[in-house]
Amino acid sequence: MLPVAIASCLSAAVFSGDVGAAQRETRIPDQAMTTAAQLRETALASDLGYRITESLTTQVGPRLAGSEGDARAVAWAVAKFKELGFDKVWTEPVTFPKWERRSESAQVLGAHAQPLHLTALGGSPAGTVEGEVVRFADLAALEAAAAGSLAGKIAFVDYKMERARDGSGYGPSGKVRSRGPSAAIRAGAAGYLMRSAGTDSHRNPHTGITRFDEGLTPIPSAALAVPDADQLARLLALGPAKVRVALDCGWDGQYTSQNVIGEITGSKKPNEVVLIGGHLDSWDLGTGAIDDGAGVGLTMAAGKLIGNLKQRPARSIRVVAFANEEQGLHGGKAYAAKHAPDLGKHQLAAESDFGAGRIYAYSSSAPDHAKAADAQIAQALAPLGIEHVPGTGGPGPDISPFAEKGLAWARLAQDGSDYFDLHHTPDDTFDKIDPKALAQNVAAYAVFAYLAASAEGDFGSAPKSE
Amino acid sequence: MLPVAIASCLSAAVFSGDVGAAQRETRIPDQAMTTAAQLRETALASDLGYRITESLTTQVGPRLAGSEGDARAVAWAVAKFKELGFDKVWTEPVTFPKWERRSESAQVLGAHAQPLHLTALGGSPAGTVEGEVVRFADLAALEAAAAGSLAGKIAFVDYKMERARDGSGYGPSGKVRSRGPSAAIRAGAAGYLMRSAGTDSHRNPHTGITRFDEGLTPIPSAALAVPDADQLARLLALGPAKVRVALDCGWDGQYTSQNVIGEITGSKKPNEVVLIGGHLDSWDLGTGAIDDGAGVGLTMAAGKLIGNLKQRPARSIRVVAFANEEQGLHGGKAYAAKHAPDLGKHQLAAESDFGAGRIYAYSSSAPDHAKAADAQIAQALAPLGIEHVPGTGGPGPDISPFAEKGLAWARLAQDGSDYFDLHHTPDDTFDKIDPKALAQNVAAYAVFAYLAASAEGDFGSAPKSE
Repeated sequence: MLPVAIASCLSAAVFSGDVGAAQRETRIPDQAMTTAAQLRETALASDLGYRITESLTTQVGPRLAGSEGDARAVAWAVAKFKELGFDKVWTEPVTFPKWERRSESAQVLGAHAQPLHLTALGGSPAGTVEGEVVRFADLAALEAAAAGSLAGKIAFVDYKMERARDGSGYGPSGKVRSRGPSAAIRAGAAGYLMRSAGTDSHRNPHTGITRFDEGLTPIPSAALAVPDADQLARLLALGPAKVRVALDCGWDGQYTSQNVIGEITGSKKPNEVVLIGGHLDSWDLGTGAIDDGAGVGLTMAAGKLIGNLKQRPARSIRVVAFANEEQGLHGGKAYAAKHAPDLGKHQLAAESDFGAGRIYAYSSSAPDHAKAADAQIAQALAPLGIEHVPGTGGPGPDISPFAEKGLAWARLAQDGSDYFDLHHTPDDTFDKIDPKALAQNVAAYAVFAYLAASAEGDFGSAPKSE
Repeated sequence: MLPVAIASCLSAAVFSGDVGAAQRETRIPDQAMTTAAQLRETALASDLGYRITESLTTQVGPRLAGSEGDARAVAWAVAKFKELGFDKVWTEPVTFPKWERRSESAQVLGAHAQPLHLTALGGSPAGTVEGEVVRFADLAALEAAAAGSLAGKIAFVDYKMERARDGSGYGPSGKVRSRGPSAAIRAGAAGYLMRSAGTDSHRNPHTGITRFDEGLTPIPSAALAVPDADQLARLLALGPAKVRVALDCGWDGQYTSQNVIGEITGSKKPNEVVLIGGHLDSWDLGTGAIDDGAGVGLTMAAGKLIGNLKQRPARSIRVVAFANEEQGLHGGKAYAAKHAPDLGKHQLAAESDFGAGRIYAYSSSAPDHAKAADAQIAQALAPLGIEHVPGTGGPGPDISPFAEKGLAWARLAQDGSDYFDLHHTPDDTFDKIDPKALAQNVAAYAVFAYLAASAEGDFGSAPKSE
């Protein structure tokens, strides 16, 4: 998951579909509600989503965008869609700059010499810097540092992320990652360190993309594991501390990966689609289980279970495994650009990219004429312990570029209380996934997608007037 | 903590002190019981043990026996004893072979290529091996493998350690580490992998010493992090898997470290001592907080708090920070060898080397004539939530060589439910210590040592007849 996208599009998108006042009210037929209830129970009893996630994270493992694992993940997804019997399977190219991590290390120097565990932020340049560390309690403190005041020094933002079910603690911590390096450069720093944007206490640092503002010369930038940030803070409380940071990483040309798409063909309006999906790429440190193997696995499984129904829904179910979400929503942007002409054929879209915890809330951008159908979906989700919270949330990261153009979206909010214990760390591995929670997710996505695809009427997807 | 020592000496030592049938019964004076109760409350309100542990783990950090950190730890301990006002501070040399870890990595090769997180076992030779992995569910299965059956292959023992308050799960898991490599060599293996002897689910492998039986040529031997053992097992379930293991590590000559000793002089029998302590060395991966910075910190604090009393106990309190426990009880053996002539001057000894969890049980080797005094100690410990469990347990690792010669010992059993989540991993860091639990430990050791040093009569320490 990317820091900035999660809640970015709500205000722009919520009412974007209200194009005609006299529009017919959208409704879901009773028969579809009955079928959805059966589908829900079938999905809860199935381990398909869990097994697909196991397959991706085991057989491919890490799949950093542009890496050899990325290419294997694309081949895996194509093969998996076909194996599952999706009616159409295809890929769409996604081109982006390629960033590589080769090695990284850090040591406290001098009388208290010891290693520190850190990881380069995505987008960091290579470089070895040695310097006295200057600690800042938060990003605002660093941003207030005078130009040149950190010359030859290493800036360290020691902001502690807060745990929250909805992941709201990631907002300020994500900014420490995305904006901290540029602030450090403006103050003259030679290197940038941050306490990991994480809620754990393990020696596994959290990576994630950063960026450097136009006109600045990038500096080596990395995140310390939480215990190492604690340790550095303790050492700094004793007196000046000098640290050596050695990063070998950087950008290396362009790479073309693929959005991989599988479709279950609808029975009456096959050219209209309900889109669900996750992102296929991961960070390199773990095996991308909660971020976002689970999202891919559970939406593939939901599509497959809908495909198994005797009576297909009216519209097609399109499952998208997006390329390179982590480094800038490249797959989502490519999808939005390519499919802009058929935006109106997208009934409703939902992306799963917040782990594998139970879904606890449902919301969507449904306009007034679709609110009754939206409530019907919520009613079918309620037995899964999912609350209807209209007017909250926003689209998942990879559908947000399309949502900005007018795509109708839904949000199936996962419990992310533990998500940032693992997010972007080596610890993001398959063993962390609870199969029962994942089955609940599959059930929710299957019910949601089936009902949206069965609705008579639309959910307001329509190109926005600029 | 070393695997083999924890419960090794009970049967030999329990009654070793019963040298004379007409011996006078040992008793603790009422005034000492009153003072001990005050000492207990003072210790519970103090953060001294926590602060000493913080100082060692922060300022020295990792202190692998024979490393530069080892030398700094010795200097730290000498300075800390002096700073705390111990009456006598000295060192005693401990010589041992030096083992170094330089680098380590592993990858699955072929269609499912991906890195695996592992760490060399202490004592492993350097080497790079590539081979097909053969999985064994436990040590017995590997030991049953026919000679030559693993030629050119890598043996992998996938035994899962069980969690237990008393750490009993470490017995069988420790054997996988100590005996597995030799069993693998006998079957012809080129390399040895084991699931970490740990109860966590984090990507931090557990190191620890291994050994190779006489006459065998050592092979590269390492422990996979628990999630990586899971991953390798899943890959092997899919078909053959080839792995590359590259370890750069090994023995490099002899090194002389020091047992560091501080003494609070007794008021009436200064030449008799109650010995408490922990071990000063740690593994290199973490900062040795629970293993065994806490043991050093809490026993130093207990000694200091006794030293603060207006009325000193009759005997001296000797706090020993033992050298190189991890690689074979070298400090404990050196202490036993050097002090064999004055074994009878050692009233009673207890070592803390099982983390920083609350103490829940007390036992000792007290012979019949000291059982009343032993019960008095237990009575003074009871308000700390400590149960008296006579006839159980054994001496801590570093006092076990001396206990085998006849030293009377006590055991203050810590809750180790979480100990093997962290033990011998990078995650053994100061942030894992609960200050309240550590203060309870300090209180227990202070009460214990003070009362044993105040007793009229002995606890049965006497050289054993061979």
